Amino acid sequence: MASVEAAAIHVAVTAQRPFAAGLFDQLRRDGLDAPGVTRDPYGPGEQRAHASVAAAAQSLGLALERDAGANLYMTRAGLDGAAPRVVIGSHLDSVPHGGNFDGAAGVVAGLVALSALAALGLTPACDITVMGIRAEESIWFQVSYIGSRGALGVLPDGALDVRRIDTGRTLAEHIADCGGDAAALRAGRRFLDPRQLRAYLELHIEQAPSLMEAGRPVAICTGIPGNFRYPDARIEGSHDHVGLPRRFRRDAAMAGAEFAMAVDRLWEQYDARGIPMAATIGRFHTDPAAHGLTIVPGAFHFSLDVRAYDEAVLVELDAAVDAIIAGIEQCRGVRFHRGAKARAAVGVVDPAIRAALTEAAAAVGIPTIDLGSPASHDAAAFAACGVPMGMIFVRNANGSHNPSETMTLEDFLDGTTVLTRWLAEKLC
Amino acid sequence: MASVEAAAIHVAVTAQRPFAAGLFDQLRRDGLDAPGVTRDPYGPGEQRAHASVAAAAQSLGLALERDAGANLYMTRAGLDGAAPRVVIGSHLDSVPHGGNFDGAAGVVAGLVALSALAALGLTPACDITVMGIRAEESIWFQVSYIGSRGALGVLPDGALDVRRIDTGRTLAEHIADCGGDAAALRAGRRFLDPRQLRAYLELHIEQAPSLMEAGRPVAICTGIPGNFRYPDARIEGSHDHVGLPRRFRRDAAMAGAEFAMAVDRLWEQYDARGIPMAATIGRFHTDPAAHGLTIVPGAFHFSLDVRAYDEAVLVELDAAVDAIIAGIEQCRGVRFHRGAKARAAVGVVDPAIRAALTEAAAAVGIPTIDLGSPASHDAAAFAACGVPMGMIFVRNANGSHNPSETMTLEDFLDGTTVLTRWLAEKLC
Repeated sequence: MASVEAAAIHVAVTAQRPFAAGLFDQLRRDGLDAPGVTRDPYGPGEQRAHASVAAAAQSLGLALERDAGANLYMTRAGLDGAAPRVVIGSHLDSVPHGGNFDGAAGVVAGLVALSALAALGLTPACDITVMGIRAEESIWFQVSYIGSRGALGVLPDGALDVRRIDTGRTLAEHIADCGGDAAALRAGRRFLDPRQLRAYLELHIEQAPSLMEAGRPVAICTGIPGNFRYPDARIEGSHDHVGLPRRFRRDAAMAGAEFAMAVDRLWEQYDARGIPMAATIGRFHTDPAAHGLTIVPGAFHFSLDVRAYDEAVLVELDAAVDAIIAGIEQCRGVRFHRGAKARAAVGVVDPAIRAALTEAAAAVGIPTIDLGSPASHDAAAFAACGVPMGMIFVRNANGSHNPSETMTLEDFLDGTTVLTRWLAEKLC
Repeated sequence: MASVEAAAIHVAVTAQRPFAAGLFDQLRRDGLDAPGVTRDPYGPGEQRAHASVAAAAQSLGLALERDAGANLYMTRAGLDGAAPRVVIGSHLDSVPHGGNFDGAAGVVAGLVALSALAALGLTPACDITVMGIRAEESIWFQVSYIGSRGALGVLPDGALDVRRIDTGRTLAEHIADCGGDAAALRAGRRFLDPRQLRAYLELHIEQAPSLMEAGRPVAICTGIPGNFRYPDARIEGSHDHVGLPRRFRRDAAMAGAEFAMAVDRLWEQYDARGIPMAATIGRFHTDPAAHGLTIVPGAFHFSLDVRAYDEAVLVELDAAVDAIIAGIEQCRGVRFHRGAKARAAVGVVDPAIRAALTEAAAAVGIPTIDLGSPASHDAAAFAACGVPMGMIFVRNANGSHNPSETMTLEDFLDGTTVLTRWLAEKLC
């Protein structure tokens, strides 16, 4: 460890404020799609963000590379170029009409940290690479961690053939549009060898208001939830006349309502037991082609995302959802068609990194809380490949995946200070 | 009362079987829109049905008239043309992809009854008019009883300016397309004076399987439900990230699910107390422009139709729905916007007509049950104007407002025999 005062690190990071503010402003202009910003993955929105970030990295003198999945790598060379490197990454795409910081903050934090280390005259022992990751938001292709899993050579079968929900074009086509090489990805060729990665670190805005509630600027991640998902489930009942007595009905929408309430009660019970999880029914609707004021709904559609921090809890919840469905089918004479099921493993945080990040925050006097990540992150894909992983969350006033998302630059620089302190401590 | 044997009436009606079968087949061909039939009100589907019915009436020697609302009147002159007449009516429109008998059966029954009376050599004391009514199905214009209320001069304010949900054109425009006179309707000019109507009778397929359950072909109506409706209600919550803990959520879809379940429980309680009612949430959906697998729904839309046979029960249910909404708003931090509210009065069946129809059925040996109408009918509009009203329901195997609706010609002729016996008893 280099003998750099903790306070000096905070000063060096804070000095990057104009750089960070300028880059965030540029990204907001790049993605503007009122209300909020849209950085559509492998589309014009994300492309503009990649171009702006690459230009900023070049201005810092970093070496640029791109892989078959069109991810962007921005590297400061370390003393030993052959030693396993550290990757600091996050994604540059967004949901439609999302906020400016979700994803992008982690990339800007990496650039600020490298710039601060340089300003402090510190040269790391190994290469440090800031990674601008593609296509993390699963709303577009209904597949998660596309960029990071592509880089690690573990993209799931069939992923390249799924279609973006708005364009109807395949992921392979979209990747080709952005200068990537879908054939190389299809062959499973990887750009990042997990054995050659010393650690993966990611800073991200918190996607819930727990830090607001706690009155702290920064949280150290204790784990990333795994999940199971039914992106396209439906319920088959019977379309009937508005006057049909209750005993004859096979109302698909009422079955959907009962399902949602049962899932909500399940969550309430887990909350009461102090076991963290979340359940979201994001799409929940009668059939627009058939529904009407005077028709008992015979068809209902929904999506389900259930997440938890413990594989055993996920198995339990999966069984509980099955039991709920069986009960409703029995009572209401309807049939659930779950459709395709997706699974993501729990992302385990490296205990040593977690402890060191907590110590780093304490050393620079930044108050933190421990926090299970509310959301999924690319960091989980790295952890799944055996890369030691840690995450830092930054306070966010108005939730995420919406235009009102709010992060102060002070909080962002506090989080980045913790990251920079860790880099200085461990690598310099 | 003419001295005609009950058995002779059944024989005379049954002899009209080829006429009825032929007209039903023609109507099915006219409305064919697989699956099922579509007779769009004041559009091509309904127009073709009117043309076929008018041609059939002409072949029976009936006098034809049309009013400003383009309703069709087919009259057999009675001995005293100045005496209040009897109207036998039903509607000739359908829901999209509905069944062939919903509405049309009542018009065909009227024609069969007049033909049977003529075959029996019976001349009624007063005119008997079969009425082919326009636009009863409220799914199209979101207004009920358009044809009958127009004929009676009681179309609600603004009705002529509402737009058909599929064409986007106003009711006034649609009426003009079909040779009607919207200006006359707007001026409140009526074609039917309630004081000049001795009775209104309507035969209709049952829109629930109660007759199937009872194993009887025909039911005598005890009342038509009144209702209150919210055609376009919505819930305002907060769009949030999939990882947001439960305590922070303002999930509009969960609020919708809780609302639906509470309404369903309310109905269950009324069923248990033996108080007939029905509640239908026909549209029930997240916002297609904003919903997604990983977004907590911040907006939800629904329609509500609540019906009962007693005005006091409707008032009670209305208050119960308000209380449900207030409770959910409180607990879930969401806001309900009910939108426009529609009300329809309970349709009271004339006790003398009801008793006489029951006697008529007994006389011809057709087993019946008493039945509260599952659905709304034009008959309620006549009752609301003080016209003595009665209804006959015919067994239907597969519910209504769907292509699988099924009625046997035997059951139809049984119901029509009851109607014809009443006419013979009361008017001949």
